[in-house]
Amino acid sequence: MLEERIRQLIDNKTKPLGALGRLEDLALQIALLQQTETPRLENPHVLVFAADHGLTAEGVSAYPADVTFGMVHNFMAGGAAINVFCKQNGLSLLVCDVGVNGSFDQAGPTLVKYKIRPGTRNMRYEPAMTPDECAAAMDAGRTLVDGVRHRDCNIVGFGEMGIGNTSAAALLMHRFTGFPLPQCVGRGTGLDDAGVARKLAVLQAVAERHADATQPLDVLTAVGGLEIAAIAGGMLQAAENGMLILVDGFIATSALLVAHALNPSILKNCIFCHQSDEAGHRFMLDFLGAKPLLNLDLRLGEGTGCALAYPLIQAAVGMLNDMATMDVL
Amino acid sequence: MLEERIRQLIDNKTKPLGALGRLEDLALQIALLQQTETPRLENPHVLVFAADHGLTAEGVSAYPADVTFGMVHNFMAGGAAINVFCKQNGLSLLVCDVGVNGSFDQAGPTLVKYKIRPGTRNMRYEPAMTPDECAAAMDAGRTLVDGVRHRDCNIVGFGEMGIGNTSAAALLMHRFTGFPLPQCVGRGTGLDDAGVARKLAVLQAVAERHADATQPLDVLTAVGGLEIAAIAGGMLQAAENGMLILVDGFIATSALLVAHALNPSILKNCIFCHQSDEAGHRFMLDFLGAKPLLNLDLRLGEGTGCALAYPLIQAAVGMLNDMATMDVL
Repeated sequence: MLEERIRQLIDNKTKPLGALGRLEDLALQIALLQQTETPRLENPHVLVFAADHGLTAEGVSAYPADVTFGMVHNFMAGGAAINVFCKQNGLSLLVCDVGVNGSFDQAGPTLVKYKIRPGTRNMRYEPAMTPDECAAAMDAGRTLVDGVRHRDCNIVGFGEMGIGNTSAAALLMHRFTGFPLPQCVGRGTGLDDAGVARKLAVLQAVAERHADATQPLDVLTAVGGLEIAAIAGGMLQAAENGMLILVDGFIATSALLVAHALNPSILKNCIFCHQSDEAGHRFMLDFLGAKPLLNLDLRLGEGTGCALAYPLIQAAVGMLNDMATMDVL
Repeated sequence: MLEERIRQLIDNKTKPLGALGRLEDLALQIALLQQTETPRLENPHVLVFAADHGLTAEGVSAYPADVTFGMVHNFMAGGAAINVFCKQNGLSLLVCDVGVNGSFDQAGPTLVKYKIRPGTRNMRYEPAMTPDECAAAMDAGRTLVDGVRHRDCNIVGFGEMGIGNTSAAALLMHRFTGFPLPQCVGRGTGLDDAGVARKLAVLQAVAERHADATQPLDVLTAVGGLEIAAIAGGMLQAAENGMLILVDGFIATSALLVAHALNPSILKNCIFCHQSDEAGHRFMLDFLGAKPLLNLDLRLGEGTGCALAYPLIQAAVGMLNDMATMDVL
């Protein structure tokens, strides 16, 4: 049996039994997913989906909404944290506009244009998306994942940029995990206590407005975001393709909650890269039974946790493929 | 003032204030140590010191003593975990025999021969080293650090290999931190409960035998190890050279306890790479006020925590040097 053979292989490496801790669990997970004793990480990618949120009109974020537009330019120019970390650790980066409020004249090699609409509707008053828009956003994620899969990528991280998207993520968390809304709502990009109280009040009103949405896709349509829908679709496609999925922070994990509701077996594909400093993330991880690799008080998004954790995943695979076995001693 | 300028530079990067968490603290520490807004990591090395321990005659380890000798051959052949992780992350590796019980015929490019004696004496009955032997071991560490410094290395990690060395480290921890011996003694390479009880009984007898040693170097001489003395010397030299010091797990941190007792300001040079699964390590870290970067249940030694954490340190420096500032938005 393959699992037994992989465990024996790990145990027989030149180290005390179990001495590489979490890296041993990770190596086993990857080898089992790829059904081989010699797993490979090929052409790793981070896909960053960007979109705006109509709910920002209600004052739920510490930053103005046009920062989304500016940050996509920053991604294209190579100046964002995710650019620096992907370059350092050898991951390719693609940025996909699924709903930014603004036009990008120059399509750089890293920008994929797939705009559904210039931001979600204001979910305080109407569903964030129509069912068709939500389906189109999910399809954008699926398409990008299939695209990198055809370039032999077998490990993909998902990042996001969208001012206001911790609000959507908090609502998804509330609906998919059952945690009370106050445990789901955090500071986002840096709200003070009064700002968090205001955000919570707005989100309570939104949750009541859409209480009738109960099916996973209905919830996503009502209170999600275009970038979150794209990530959920991309994750589902990655799982169908047998790829490893790098899970980033609060928003990316909220997309996984949607994907997980539609396909619970997706967890075997998932590597949880870090625990975010955003308050609700640890409860999300608990809900999924996930133990993240890093805990560095990050709360940036963009897929930065994926890019930072990637060398640990390489190390787990390297242990399995490149370490000597006990017979050399 | 430099610190204020560095903080402003970090705050002005294209990210929410504080959103890179621990990486921001790390960037500040490195920039302050190097007294520059554009710090660099140059020619990173891991130095692994290997030595045997006379106390293994008392049955304190789950593995036989000759594993030390075998593992040094494994380092030279490139098959150990530290080889794999150093190669992956771009660190150079040097292995130094300061006290292995066995002769190495072929000196490979990675092996430095600096044998003081073939293992420490049995500290159950006499001091582990003479003062001259301890001084020579510390000098070996200083010499290697100066050697890599002259090859422009400005960041150095310390690893160790020595069956029985969690016993020496536990005794050093007990004497330098004041924690009761039972909190200092763990499973090492994998003792069961009965083995731990036996190890504790032996170490209690050793502690009583050497209760008169109170000065830092006297304690190191009485209950240390040749590789631990070499690391302590190497760390002191690295601090004098203004280099960054990567601190690994339980044994490397016990060497730092010695170095710290002789030069408390060494902590500004230290990056704590991980919290080991060896029971006493978290108390050691608490004693030093240290917050490690990784917590992955590792307990392998060899400097593996240093090599695994290195990309996070690169990321902190990359953030400072390569990220755009807010004026691009």
